[in-house]
Amino acid sequence: MDPSSTASLTGRLAARARELDERHAAADRSSAFVLPDGVVYLDGNSLGALPKVVPDVVADVMSQQWGQRLVRSWNEVDWWGAPERVGDRIGALLGAAPGQVVATDSTSVNLFKVFGAASKMHPWRSRVLTDPDSFPTDLYVLESAARLSGLTVELVHPADAPARIARLGKKLALVAYSDVDYRTGERWDLPEITHEAHRVGAFACWDLCHSAGVVDVELDLGGADFAVGCGYKYLNGGPGAPAFIYVRTEHQGTFENPVAGWHGHARPFSMSRRYHPAAGIGRARSGTPPMLSLLALEAALTAYDGVSMRAVRARSLSLTGFFVHCLGELGVGLVVATPVEDARRGSQVSLRHPAGYAVVQALAARGVVGDFREPDIIRLGFAPLYVSHADALAAAEHLGEVLASNEYERPEFAGRAVVT
Amino acid sequence: MDPSSTASLTGRLAARARELDERHAAADRSSAFVLPDGVVYLDGNSLGALPKVVPDVVADVMSQQWGQRLVRSWNEVDWWGAPERVGDRIGALLGAAPGQVVATDSTSVNLFKVFGAASKMHPWRSRVLTDPDSFPTDLYVLESAARLSGLTVELVHPADAPARIARLGKKLALVAYSDVDYRTGERWDLPEITHEAHRVGAFACWDLCHSAGVVDVELDLGGADFAVGCGYKYLNGGPGAPAFIYVRTEHQGTFENPVAGWHGHARPFSMSRRYHPAAGIGRARSGTPPMLSLLALEAALTAYDGVSMRAVRARSLSLTGFFVHCLGELGVGLVVATPVEDARRGSQVSLRHPAGYAVVQALAARGVVGDFREPDIIRLGFAPLYVSHADALAAAEHLGEVLASNEYERPEFAGRAVVT
Repeated sequence: MDPSSTASLTGRLAARARELDERHAAADRSSAFVLPDGVVYLDGNSLGALPKVVPDVVADVMSQQWGQRLVRSWNEVDWWGAPERVGDRIGALLGAAPGQVVATDSTSVNLFKVFGAASKMHPWRSRVLTDPDSFPTDLYVLESAARLSGLTVELVHPADAPARIARLGKKLALVAYSDVDYRTGERWDLPEITHEAHRVGAFACWDLCHSAGVVDVELDLGGADFAVGCGYKYLNGGPGAPAFIYVRTEHQGTFENPVAGWHGHARPFSMSRRYHPAAGIGRARSGTPPMLSLLALEAALTAYDGVSMRAVRARSLSLTGFFVHCLGELGVGLVVATPVEDARRGSQVSLRHPAGYAVVQALAARGVVGDFREPDIIRLGFAPLYVSHADALAAAEHLGEVLASNEYERPEFAGRAVVT
Repeated sequence: MDPSSTASLTGRLAARARELDERHAAADRSSAFVLPDGVVYLDGNSLGALPKVVPDVVADVMSQQWGQRLVRSWNEVDWWGAPERVGDRIGALLGAAPGQVVATDSTSVNLFKVFGAASKMHPWRSRVLTDPDSFPTDLYVLESAARLSGLTVELVHPADAPARIARLGKKLALVAYSDVDYRTGERWDLPEITHEAHRVGAFACWDLCHSAGVVDVELDLGGADFAVGCGYKYLNGGPGAPAFIYVRTEHQGTFENPVAGWHGHARPFSMSRRYHPAAGIGRARSGTPPMLSLLALEAALTAYDGVSMRAVRARSLSLTGFFVHCLGELGVGLVVATPVEDARRGSQVSLRHPAGYAVVQALAARGVVGDFREPDIIRLGFAPLYVSHADALAAAEHLGEVLASNEYERPEFAGRAVVT
């Protein structure tokens, strides 16, 4: 391509980016976030950016609520009710009516609660299905909970799940799938899998780690029995922000939380010797929640005030679609692991490259932050609240340059620092 | 007592308080804490006071580590290693050599891990002993874990435990006792109970919630197999600060964490389908830890820099002993539920009064913050790092006045606000 046609291509893509940013301005909340100069941040699917409101809120929690009012804040500013309060706020982003979500513990711990409780709700059923490509913690926790409960885990790809569910019939206790694959960004049809599970009387648990805050999930409508997800990715709650757990209202009466801590008790301060679980979603709580992290998450969620999840999802799809379009236009010939159909895509674009790790490092050196996932995935997350189409174009251009110049082959980009 | 003798008594006690504060100055770190004007804070056993260093540290974590460096901070400032780093810092206060403590999750979740793992280490043993007066979460979690594992829990008072252990013999899998009773403040002889448990080949788990940071616990010397405790009481880590779990080095190889999350994996970023637990204490981790709360706890622990636990324990005993002495001298005739012998006392003084709840409210209105525990306990915690003997005297005087004047009978002090 000669320089003038490159310039004109770049100009056309830039104009298109401006146009799309304008069209999807309703979900642009970038002014509510701290975004470091010179950084195109495409790792909000690992750790979301800092909402500007968080430092002041947490400073007040520390200096006033903790420092001055001390233990009285548990009642005075209702620290006690924060898990349910934040849970309802998250539920609103997930199509869940109030009283079904609580923000607490980590995703791993919440998965364990679901698996432990679900196995007791179906004591005569012996099988659990999950995706062999699940995020590892889902596999590990499910295996461990299954061993304790005498269940057998079957690894079945989501596309094959409906047929397998039908064959297992009344042997099946639970299916546990992710809405969006953490590696490829593929979105599965969880309502369909759930529908099949319900036909044989089994439960469905949805992992929403890569969906919460970007995909217009419909937990209530889709029939989910249980769900979990984390607060630190697209919900921008900060590093290790508390996770959430959803238990559909109709199951709350029979949901026996295996980690039966005192915060899930109906009357925690009665200090009773017997565990009487709270009537509602509160029974999914266990111990005392980490308030600084939880109240940071609560503050972070205000970034969604006045923004509909429909607008967020539309902007997300536009961003990822435009990025793939730019790769094509710019002649960046990488295998795109993420489906091109909108309905089958989460909020990320994953690209395969044998030297994926080095490419991610080379991009980072240019200020384009993504991440690498074994074995060969360059994973770029598009957080629609603060990533723009202009950012998407810039990332595609940098990626093209890194590949065309073999920049990624520099020795400083080799290695796998975090894999010990 | 005539006014002049009251004045001279008060004067004598004040002089004694000054003398004791001087004698125990080595553990006085009150200058490192925010202590609100007009407050005598005797609830550090529920929520420790704010260490001055914490707000600046957490502000930096938010604005720089999270806001500017974003996901890179997991490696750059070793967020990843924080649970073990903070764990070692706590272990140093508990007589545990490095590599045996990790700061993670809540006490309830950590208890569940211990109970789940211990039951698998003794699959042929069916009994667990614990104290009927344990903090409720211990009872609830133990019952729940026992049901999952097919164990039977026996409620046996700590004083009767050695005899019962001997009778149970090889039926016994685990004893789980608290070092200090949360209600009465009585300290039990856990090394003795542990010794008896070991004689029959059983394990001992120590709950250190009311000991960590105030009692010179000797985990390694005392033979503890496992221990748990929280970070938000005397360790001053802030509301809901992460808890800790201790697994003795010799048990780490066989400790199967039932909540087998990816942070406990030997190579988390290999994203392996199989769970291979980390070689050391890291296997007691589960999911992603709440970093704001965890790094607040890390900063809070610097209050112990240069202070020996021996000095802390000596100051603690002096404070509680002096407070009881003041009650006697001032003629405050309440039943003291806490043992007077130093070796049998934690860092609190618990007093019984039929209108205990109202008395606690009346004290709070005067700026003396303690708490109430069912059924009739006025619980006053003496955090030795920032409570002085002058505070202890002031609290005793206020208590005497509240009782002598029947001030606690005012209608605004009635009720049980937090018990629903």
